[in-house]
Amino acid sequence: MVTARARAADGIDEARLWQRHMAMARLGARGDGGVNRQALSDEDIAARRTLIGWAEARGFACAVDPIGNLFVRRAGREPDQPPVLTGSHLDSQPTGGKFDGAYGVLAGFEVLEALEDLGVATRRSIEAVAWTNEEGSRFQPGAMGSAAFVGRMALGAVLDTVDRAGVRLGDALEATLAATPTLARRPLGFPVASYVEAHIEQGPRLEAEGKLIGAVTGIQGSRWFAVEVKGEEAHAGTTPLRGRKDALKAAMSMIGALESLMADASDVVRFTVGRFDVSPNSPNTVPGRVFFSVDFRHPDPAVLARLGDRVAPVCREHARGCAVTVTPTFDAPPIQFERAIVDAVSGAAARLGLSCMDIFSGAFHDAKFVAEVAPTGMIFVPCARGISHNPAESAEPAHLAAGARVLAEVLVELADR
Amino acid sequence: MVTARARAADGIDEARLWQRHMAMARLGARGDGGVNRQALSDEDIAARRTLIGWAEARGFACAVDPIGNLFVRRAGREPDQPPVLTGSHLDSQPTGGKFDGAYGVLAGFEVLEALEDLGVATRRSIEAVAWTNEEGSRFQPGAMGSAAFVGRMALGAVLDTVDRAGVRLGDALEATLAATPTLARRPLGFPVASYVEAHIEQGPRLEAEGKLIGAVTGIQGSRWFAVEVKGEEAHAGTTPLRGRKDALKAAMSMIGALESLMADASDVVRFTVGRFDVSPNSPNTVPGRVFFSVDFRHPDPAVLARLGDRVAPVCREHARGCAVTVTPTFDAPPIQFERAIVDAVSGAAARLGLSCMDIFSGAFHDAKFVAEVAPTGMIFVPCARGISHNPAESAEPAHLAAGARVLAEVLVELADR
Repeated sequence: MVTARARAADGIDEARLWQRHMAMARLGARGDGGVNRQALSDEDIAARRTLIGWAEARGFACAVDPIGNLFVRRAGREPDQPPVLTGSHLDSQPTGGKFDGAYGVLAGFEVLEALEDLGVATRRSIEAVAWTNEEGSRFQPGAMGSAAFVGRMALGAVLDTVDRAGVRLGDALEATLAATPTLARRPLGFPVASYVEAHIEQGPRLEAEGKLIGAVTGIQGSRWFAVEVKGEEAHAGTTPLRGRKDALKAAMSMIGALESLMADASDVVRFTVGRFDVSPNSPNTVPGRVFFSVDFRHPDPAVLARLGDRVAPVCREHARGCAVTVTPTFDAPPIQFERAIVDAVSGAAARLGLSCMDIFSGAFHDAKFVAEVAPTGMIFVPCARGISHNPAESAEPAHLAAGARVLAEVLVELADR
Repeated sequence: MVTARARAADGIDEARLWQRHMAMARLGARGDGGVNRQALSDEDIAARRTLIGWAEARGFACAVDPIGNLFVRRAGREPDQPPVLTGSHLDSQPTGGKFDGAYGVLAGFEVLEALEDLGVATRRSIEAVAWTNEEGSRFQPGAMGSAAFVGRMALGAVLDTVDRAGVRLGDALEATLAATPTLARRPLGFPVASYVEAHIEQGPRLEAEGKLIGAVTGIQGSRWFAVEVKGEEAHAGTTPLRGRKDALKAAMSMIGALESLMADASDVVRFTVGRFDVSPNSPNTVPGRVFFSVDFRHPDPAVLARLGDRVAPVCREHARGCAVTVTPTFDAPPIQFERAIVDAVSGAAARLGLSCMDIFSGAFHDAKFVAEVAPTGMIFVPCARGISHNPAESAEPAHLAAGARVLAEVLVELADR
């Protein structure tokens, strides 16, 4: 006897799922194969309309909440029970790819279609959601839709945020909602039975291990710092090195010492200096000021505390006569996903004969916030060489389908609980 | 019996010289006490007109050559003999001070006035010159007027150079020349008997040694390099450090190794990384590309060759998996000024009872080019803490006057030869 779960996975249509990705990637397509579809932009509105069109063609109900989170619902046998949610986001980085975010929404929608095609009824409703503004590249902070949904962020607190062109978030949101005026409205934060988000890994580990499925056990913690180094501008030809206060060389010493601090034979520590600004940035003037960022991540809160607390002292110890200010800009503890959901993912992969490994997420996701209000998990699939936030982002149709099959299994299991 | 030389130095008027500096500093004055008077700008034109006004009030003839070098002439008894030249430049850095360049022009003009006041006749004519565009901050390269004067640079080769606003140098030059239409015109590169340039030191050595006058023996050599490091952009949260090609960390390793290479207990080596550009310069993306500049200077050609030739190999040895391209962008050998002029400066300082030391110039000056066609020397005076190319640039009225007194002595000696 074939169970409902196995039937659900069998309904996943690899070609249809791939075509939906390609269709979505045309909205905000860049000339280099990438996608620029920033939150609440015309391209984002087009992506929302496209998803709504597909949903209505299948008879799924659509609804939107005050921050623009878009829900596509396949009703269960007990429609008053809290639904099982799946999804991710449709917005992208300005130099984004075709899969980050879009995959989670389209895989969720593919599961709804598969269940519809097969006539599988579930106890709870299943809803595919596109959370608003996960990337945070146009309006900060990111993961805004999921944070507002779970009550971590007040909607009123961000309406006056402006983008680089001076557009107010409140106005962009109003325009986005006005573009789909007939959509049902929902309040923020209705009860959710559980949440499962599918996503490309955005890292190279599945590929390196030759696995198709990552059962995501949690999201590592992050501590970010802004370091400002103030030295003294001087003439490069005349000023003896001994008397200089060279902000750039001081910053280099700090970063070198931080590299030593963060050295980790197990290669679990993530330590990145991504931003580095020099003033006056002229070849023949000794730099008087440097600003640099520190992005430090680790799954273990004890390591986050021990190494993160050393960042400011290490910078001060290597200031080479310059003044240094270290400001913490972000501090997010690691989170662990619900074990039952991780096991459901591993179990589904095993039943489907798909290779699977436990994996910790290095990146943030909307799941980080939803985990605060409901049992939550994630499913990763490989992306080529781990490259993401990059127009070169790439994933295989068969891998995307494999993840969607696992997702179908897990969602039906959770919806029938 | 008082000699003509001593009389000339006695005619230097410290207050007048200071007031001329303050008047000139109002043309392009910045709010922070500095000066922004870029080459061939409205402010430069105003400075030229001011100098011409002062000159005509004293009956000195003014002339301009095709690149805008402005000459103020006090005729000698044998006006057909090649003149003795003195001067510097009136243009400044965008974040410049009141003394760099202006001092050499105003000290030269002060000598002409002192001689006129005292009725001292010289055999050769003496001319104070303001060379066009020494700084090179608006139009590259710098020292353009003196380079064109000595035939090192063809005027036609730079006319199409544009500034950041897209203004063509040829058009800015034409506007500058048109602003003083009645001025006599001269060809480039007439014969010059000798050249002496007064300048603030732009370094801290006179101040540190407690000396008033630097008898400049030469200008150190320079080798500049542009280093481009290409790594691979990656997600800061997900990408293991072991697999990264982090262009910033590679650049830091290169600069650290170059610091070791350039280590010099005698503190004569000048090694500066002034420009450092990171792409994409985002806190949570591993840098994919870094560009940085190397400015290396030394008085000894053997050291310039030995260390300079190591820059590219050292960068390649520390590339940490990134691709690196090292391009030489400037290579100027050290120059030695004519010993007779250096001795004339030391001798004049000694006769005037002013403390004096031999000093090598760390910075370029127009004297570097004029030295190619005439016996040349320079006189340095202290500037506070060696700070220059900075609105905080500062010099003492008494020090400026002391330098002008030495200059008066030397010019009269050379003009009577």
